[in-house]
Amino acid sequence: MLENSNDFGTENVLSDGAKNANVSAIKEIMYLTGKEIEKGRDIVSLSVGIPFYKMPKKIREHAVEKLTEKPNIDKYTFLTGMPELRKAIVEDIKKNLNIDTTTDEILVTPGSMGGLMYTMTAILNKGDEVVMFSPFFSSHAEQIKLSEGIPVAVPLIKPKGKDGHYRIDLEGVKKAISKKTKAILVCNPANPTGAVLLKEDLVALAKIIKDKGIYLINDEVYDFLVYDNHEYFNIATIKELWPRVIRCWSFSKKYGMTGWRLGYLHTNKELIKHILKIHDSTIVCAPHIAQEAGLAALRYTHPELPENKEALKRNRDLICQRLDRLSDLFSYVKPQGAYYVLPKYSVDIGSVEFAKKMLYEAGVAIVPGIGFGPDAEGHVRMSYGGSASEINEAFDRIEKWWKDHKETNKP
Amino acid sequence: MLENSNDFGTENVLSDGAKNANVSAIKEIMYLTGKEIEKGRDIVSLSVGIPFYKMPKKIREHAVEKLTEKPNIDKYTFLTGMPELRKAIVEDIKKNLNIDTTTDEILVTPGSMGGLMYTMTAILNKGDEVVMFSPFFSSHAEQIKLSEGIPVAVPLIKPKGKDGHYRIDLEGVKKAISKKTKAILVCNPANPTGAVLLKEDLVALAKIIKDKGIYLINDEVYDFLVYDNHEYFNIATIKELWPRVIRCWSFSKKYGMTGWRLGYLHTNKELIKHILKIHDSTIVCAPHIAQEAGLAALRYTHPELPENKEALKRNRDLICQRLDRLSDLFSYVKPQGAYYVLPKYSVDIGSVEFAKKMLYEAGVAIVPGIGFGPDAEGHVRMSYGGSASEINEAFDRIEKWWKDHKETNKP
Repeated sequence: MLENSNDFGTENVLSDGAKNANVSAIKEIMYLTGKEIEKGRDIVSLSVGIPFYKMPKKIREHAVEKLTEKPNIDKYTFLTGMPELRKAIVEDIKKNLNIDTTTDEILVTPGSMGGLMYTMTAILNKGDEVVMFSPFFSSHAEQIKLSEGIPVAVPLIKPKGKDGHYRIDLEGVKKAISKKTKAILVCNPANPTGAVLLKEDLVALAKIIKDKGIYLINDEVYDFLVYDNHEYFNIATIKELWPRVIRCWSFSKKYGMTGWRLGYLHTNKELIKHILKIHDSTIVCAPHIAQEAGLAALRYTHPELPENKEALKRNRDLICQRLDRLSDLFSYVKPQGAYYVLPKYSVDIGSVEFAKKMLYEAGVAIVPGIGFGPDAEGHVRMSYGGSASEINEAFDRIEKWWKDHKETNKP
Repeated sequence: MLENSNDFGTENVLSDGAKNANVSAIKEIMYLTGKEIEKGRDIVSLSVGIPFYKMPKKIREHAVEKLTEKPNIDKYTFLTGMPELRKAIVEDIKKNLNIDTTTDEILVTPGSMGGLMYTMTAILNKGDEVVMFSPFFSSHAEQIKLSEGIPVAVPLIKPKGKDGHYRIDLEGVKKAISKKTKAILVCNPANPTGAVLLKEDLVALAKIIKDKGIYLINDEVYDFLVYDNHEYFNIATIKELWPRVIRCWSFSKKYGMTGWRLGYLHTNKELIKHILKIHDSTIVCAPHIAQEAGLAALRYTHPELPENKEALKRNRDLICQRLDRLSDLFSYVKPQGAYYVLPKYSVDIGSVEFAKKMLYEAGVAIVPGIGFGPDAEGHVRMSYGGSASEINEAFDRIEKWWKDHKETNKP
């Protein structure tokens, strides 16, 4: 090698963004789980955010038909997505949110993750900040860090009792916003807490966002999944926030289509033009067959959807009952939406260590809270998107583990 | 709005990367073409790099079967891709390139574009440089700019006659490498020139890359498409370059699967771990159904493949004949691979203006050379991936246009 060579080993070839980011805690626990399963161990997983249900029947029929009969199904679509799909999305937005929009404000993306990552790439320079609430979905922080931005977490105010509401710390938000702040990211209903934010908090938050002249990034992946009589209020429906709103929506969870990689991004058409460059350079277009599936999702009525939601509500009630039976190990806030619960455990060890004990000693995969920010340390995230029998089996194992280890692990 | 607000309009919310990048010239001409078609105009397109053929029959049958029968087909796969697919890729690499690798060096990506964009995000800090040959594929430059890097173009040495070889300017490469250079990007066979680089040039280039301690990024999308008796030599097979090699491969062109968004990235396993963070934050995993299609592509023999290649060779010969008939308008180097030709036109106007004349006056969509770097100004890129009748119709129109406009457009 020449003396004046650049000599890049793996560590020093990396960009700062790649160095600073982490694989999400969820994926890390998936990886460790996979290793255990390879060794022949039987693991029950409450770690992954995949709903148990398949995509509705009519969507599959439509996809099979297009796969066999649509002449250009193997080819790229337009970068922005199929015109019919974007039109259907515009109509869906009008119907569900009463927001008037046009197809040139819609970009069909590979899931909401694609839209969120594009957003961060599009707006963040090194050192720019995005304010978000913690506990937060780990990938949001990683997307910001990969774009060399800084995630600034404002802790949600945790309710006293298990039936209370997580509240937004509005004064905390005001203090967190600096000259470097480009946007506030809202994820409602929230992953990993299952919180559904209150309309009055969101209205007050919107005023701050508007006054500061920053953007709202709205992750709406769980918008369809609010339990009991809790009101779901979408902050992006506040007209005064536009055009500084970026909505990221996904077909993944609502339609049981996580593997299809389909969502959309909705913002002002000027910003769409810039985000399009990133989309073009990353994936060119969302998968054509997935776009057809998305079109069928929006076009038809699916009797499966209310059934799925009902089953998830039963899962929520079940996991709460099972947590209640372990009240000397877990305390929690009852989830109002999404399919996650973030119980606090009473054992005095870090959440990574606790999650590893659960994996290696109890045979149950759950995600350590630290992956969702320091405010979630001492907690673990459990997904109840799976089947009731999985939830029961996981808790049978945890109960047995606790019975065997209670004495040695007492706080 | 408060006096101390951040006040982000669309222009000042943007990152430097998003500001500096452009929508590729190819997509811009597609957009203008779309507008013409919407107005009811009949346009023949030689602009897009989509092959005319569909995906082979066995792949479709496999996809339909999995879509209807595989229980978890709607769900995420592992981030890195389906284990069976990664194993098949490892075997394919051994068979085709005689490179020994393992599944932990393989990441299944949304096309090669995904792999290339991840690469740039992973290795480039602001001001870092990537050396590439010009004329270059426009998206390569945009990917670098979006990551706030600088594309440094070294012009290929154009052959004197139409049957000669494009050569690498090895002294030019040495001069272009600075302390800021992290990698050299090679695309062979090349888009937009159709050049197939000579083994002796690539061996000499490899020595420079190795001596300088930088990375090789190898875009191998057209590796299956070399005509006549030209030798295809894959520079990534030079063992001494490893582990500083990043190979980006795609199912899109070879298998007629542009709309499926499937490819893979192959590099050392340490770098894979970092690139995985970007992949996780962007798309989580490549589309599951596309991964099944990819598995069928590698697993079965497809009689369509040699037929498709033969048809593309006939297209290549046809477009050369048609260009020869217009020798007072076009001069060109005969393509040796891929399905593009980059003729120089004799009219004394810029390539954007020339391409617009072709679109608006002749009704033919072609891409202005300037989109492939300043060295391609005065040229246009024509794709002959379509049907023979499209090529003939396009050239009938160009011939008519030239007959009508020859006098006014003479150099």
